[in-house]
Amino acid sequence: MKISILIHCPDKAGIISAVTGFIQSYGGNVIYLDQHVDKEANVFFMRLESDFEQSRFNLINFKSEFENTLAKPYLMEWSIDTDEKKGKMALFVSKYNHCLYDLLSRFKSGELNVEIPFILSNHNDLRDIAEQFNIPFYHIPISKETRKEAEQEQLQLLKDNHVDFIVLARYMQIVSSTVISKFPNKIINIHHSFLPAFAGAKPYHAAFERGVKIIGATSHYVTKELDAGPIIEQDVTTVSHSHSIRDFIAKGRDLEKIVLSRAVKLHLQGKTMVYNNKTVIFS
Amino acid sequence: MKISILIHCPDKAGIISAVTGFIQSYGGNVIYLDQHVDKEANVFFMRLESDFEQSRFNLINFKSEFENTLAKPYLMEWSIDTDEKKGKMALFVSKYNHCLYDLLSRFKSGELNVEIPFILSNHNDLRDIAEQFNIPFYHIPISKETRKEAEQEQLQLLKDNHVDFIVLARYMQIVSSTVISKFPNKIINIHHSFLPAFAGAKPYHAAFERGVKIIGATSHYVTKELDAGPIIEQDVTTVSHSHSIRDFIAKGRDLEKIVLSRAVKLHLQGKTMVYNNKTVIFS
Amino acid sequence: MKISILIHCPDKAGIISAVTGFIQSYGGNVIYLDQHVDKEANVFFMRLESDFEQSRFNLINFKSEFENTLAKPYLMEWSIDTDEKKGKMALFVSKYNHCLYDLLSRFKSGELNVEIPFILSNHNDLRDIAEQFNIPFYHIPISKETRKEAEQEQLQLLKDNHVDFIVLARYMQIVSSTVISKFPNKIINIHHSFLPAFAGAKPYHAAFERGVKIIGATSHYVTKELDAGPIIEQDVTTVSHSHSIRDFIAKGRDLEKIVLSRAVKLHLQGKTMVYNNKTVIFS
Amino acid sequence: MKISILIHCPDKAGIISAVTGFIQSYGGNVIYLDQHVDKEANVFFMRLESDFEQSRFNLINFKSEFENTLAKPYLMEWSIDTDEKKGKMALFVSKYNHCLYDLLSRFKSGELNVEIPFILSNHNDLRDIAEQFNIPFYHIPISKETRKEAEQEQLQLLKDNHVDFIVLARYMQIVSSTVISKFPNKIINIHHSFLPAFAGAKPYHAAFERGVKIIGATSHYVTKELDAGPIIEQDVTTVSHSHSIRDFIAKGRDLEKIVLSRAVKLHLQGKTMVYNNKTVIFS
Repeated sequence: MKISILIHCPDKAGIISAVTGFIQSYGGNVIYLDQHVDKEANVFFMRLESDFEQSRFNLINFKSEFENTLAKPYLMEWSIDTDEKKGKMALFVSKYNHCLYDLLSRFKSGELNVEIPFILSNHNDLRDIAEQFNIPFYHIPISKETRKEAEQEQLQLLKDNHVDFIVLARYMQIVSSTVISKFPNKIINIHHSFLPAFAGAKPYHAAFERGVKIIGATSHYVTKELDAGPIIEQDVTTVSHSHSIRDFIAKGRDLEKIVLSRAVKLHLQGKTMVYNNKTVIFS
Repeated sequence: MKISILIHCPDKAGIISAVTGFIQSYGGNVIYLDQHVDKEANVFFMRLESDFEQSRFNLINFKSEFENTLAKPYLMEWSIDTDEKKGKMALFVSKYNHCLYDLLSRFKSGELNVEIPFILSNHNDLRDIAEQFNIPFYHIPISKETRKEAEQEQLQLLKDNHVDFIVLARYMQIVSSTVISKFPNKIINIHHSFLPAFAGAKPYHAAFERGVKIIGATSHYVTKELDAGPIIEQDVTTVSHSHSIRDFIAKGRDLEKIVLSRAVKLHLQGKTMVYNNKTVIFS
Repeated sequence: MKISILIHCPDKAGIISAVTGFIQSYGGNVIYLDQHVDKEANVFFMRLESDFEQSRFNLINFKSEFENTLAKPYLMEWSIDTDEKKGKMALFVSKYNHCLYDLLSRFKSGELNVEIPFILSNHNDLRDIAEQFNIPFYHIPISKETRKEAEQEQLQLLKDNHVDFIVLARYMQIVSSTVISKFPNKIINIHHSFLPAFAGAKPYHAAFERGVKIIGATSHYVTKELDAGPIIEQDVTTVSHSHSIRDFIAKGRDLEKIVLSRAVKLHLQGKTMVYNNKTVIFS
Repeated sequence: MKISILIHCPDKAGIISAVTGFIQSYGGNVIYLDQHVDKEANVFFMRLESDFEQSRFNLINFKSEFENTLAKPYLMEWSIDTDEKKGKMALFVSKYNHCLYDLLSRFKSGELNVEIPFILSNHNDLRDIAEQFNIPFYHIPISKETRKEAEQEQLQLLKDNHVDFIVLARYMQIVSSTVISKFPNKIINIHHSFLPAFAGAKPYHAAFERGVKIIGATSHYVTKELDAGPIIEQDVTTVSHSHSIRDFIAKGRDLEKIVLSRAVKLHLQGKTMVYNNKTVIFS
């Protein structure tokens, strides 16, 4: 039986020894360990995987003793995952199809260990693609008048489908603060600039206007402050004076696809941890 | 005899034909041509190089007819360079030595076709390096009280040495607006972030704080607005949660060196043109 | 009316002037010009676009006078394209679906100005995807015994569908020399290494074995020598000791997709020219 | 007191627990741990750092018990470093100065925690630079006739100066197999291509000839087979048809400098481990 443990706590002497010794005492074999200390914030982070002989291992005892022996004295926040159950990922889109196509192609190829219960959009444009990949599509238009109702519909859909996390695959709407608070560090957005440069609307236009020689894309967890959540992944590509805004947009599409898909994979693998509005990305 | 011509003017039909035809009529042979149209601003840019038979070519006539036949009707701003005279580059530094070492090593290796009449600093720390490379070093401290005097000393030095352009190789002072106005698009700065992100002081600290996964460096012409001048060159490198601010600074040093040296080379080769606070970089 | 002209010829004085002057004499307005001289091989390359007033422009006369006045004396090889007719692109695949999905998504999004008359495979695995995108799929298995017949079937399909060029989107078979000779510089392959390193089979395994810190992908025109044709586009990504061969393959997939799609776009836009087994890529 | 431990051994259950438990039993506090398992070769690698209370810690006992309790049963190869003693690095150069300037500038800036007892060259060209930085310079010319003697002189110099490792900063000679065998995984070379492409002489010429779109540099440990030793670090930059061989060389210089200096730093920090002609690079 393989379990993986995620921990963060105030940094202190002996945490690694204590945790690996504890696992050893249960007959476990640590097969992977990655740790990090944020010296500014004095916080210790660790992810480890361990094998146990199924017959002799009792997870409930393990967890309760872990809580008492380690978590309490070291003030740990922790989680233990025991299997590779598939997460349920909802996709929110608007009119751009490149990120949607990219995620669905990867999903169809078996690259993403996930279920996609539905695709939700404030427009009807991408319904065809949902049908092409046999995934339920919900069209929930949003206007000033219907905003509250739309939010309720979204929340109901998310609940009915037991959604674990949401991916905004170029969803051109602001997610309501109620949805955000129900999915803390569980909503992944792709922004089409190297944040913090060019937050907000029309970043390619702003980048063109400024005459930058590099454009980027940033995937981050959504928080209530627009485009200011913890960054999961970024990448960039070069541009020159010879590129028009259309060229920026076309080059950017390829960045957005790849940066978003990397972030989704990291999240799915449990390799991201959020602290102080920043991420630790385990190897 | 080889001349190179730089032009920008409102875009219009027939400019390339007109210019190359004109050169042909003087017996010239165009050996390189790079042009660009900024369709947003409706501006045409061109750089070309042409060979002429020395014996039959009169530069003064050529220039005056160029002015009358082409520049006036097409409303061109233009310049013609006829030889490879070395530019005179003043270096302004403070306490960091990496960009200075890099530029001086390239200079000493013959990589930069330039003269360096002097190095100027508001501190004395880097005098040794100037001496190591046999270049005059002027220490002009700057305080609130001496700011005006210091500016005068700077201007005098620049004038006495017939300086063509200034490179701020991590000069940790704001250049006075008088100096800027005397050297429009002739002062090259290196800023240690991918502008427009993290303009101003301590960009690595700000980048660390924000939790970015990419840091950068930007070389730009200095204008009166801080860190907002036309960008010549940018580059980036990846960072992760495991990097401290010290690591950011160390990784950044290598970026700063290379981005600044690329910008200096482009400037020296006459391959940069500024328009609307942006650069056109010719190939 | 807009035409674009591609030229290569021995380098000589005055070619740019001669061509732009000729266009001017027909009332044309050169709106884009990119030229290059390979000084080792002494060859001149140029791509230009020009506008003409439709009413006064006779293409047949233009071409015939171009041939007599310019092409013959300068020994030019040249082509003139007058419209944006869509090319016909055949896709050859085997079992991997990532490049196919990527190209079809781009096609469906209108990113590629092309027709796809059919997808051909030596396996049946990807038929579903062809159907999902409503494109005819032909399964032509290849064995030692059927190789000749299969080649005939391929040639017939290519001919019947007036195919302009072929993209090998991870086609795991060697294309027959007859097909290659009928499509010179018209077959685009994606090889999963930074050529010339790791040509041939299983490049990710070889890269892993060698312990490289960077892996790559290369798109090139197919010639009779395996993996040795003119390179159109390359890109790389970093790897480390912590990556397994599976990780190399997964990271590589994203490279392959993007490198192949960039090469296909350059080919479609007529921006590639082949000389001495190398490409000139116009801007 | 801080010690760092490097280990590799056949992979087996419980190594991490055993080692961290052992350290704990000595009152140690593990402050950093990075491990890796090469699943192909079934080898376990680990680097860790631990703090001990100086007063209660006996290094000799620790080492001997480590050997008996851990190293023997687990068949470990291991080393323990207890302080930050400076390594002694000899520099071998020929005529190119860019890597030499770069390393000496970093050395002078305090970036490299190292002593440089001497610079050795088969030419006299770079003596000035050695003098500029006050480092002894030995000119040992090499010809067919003097090869044996030169080797003896080299060995004597290396011995007299207690050299720990050698950096070939564009040393254009083959290092003798005797020197190599006395410095196993202790000679760092910079090769000006992305190995294994373009091993051997004149890689930029070969890259130009092949028409690649990317060039690279590779730093590796020297083994008896030319350019085939374990790769420490690689990086690349883009090129195009418009670049001449001279341009390749100029762009390559910047790559060589940075790749070599990164490799030297990793070696100095004890973050490299060699196995099966590959490196593990610890974070």
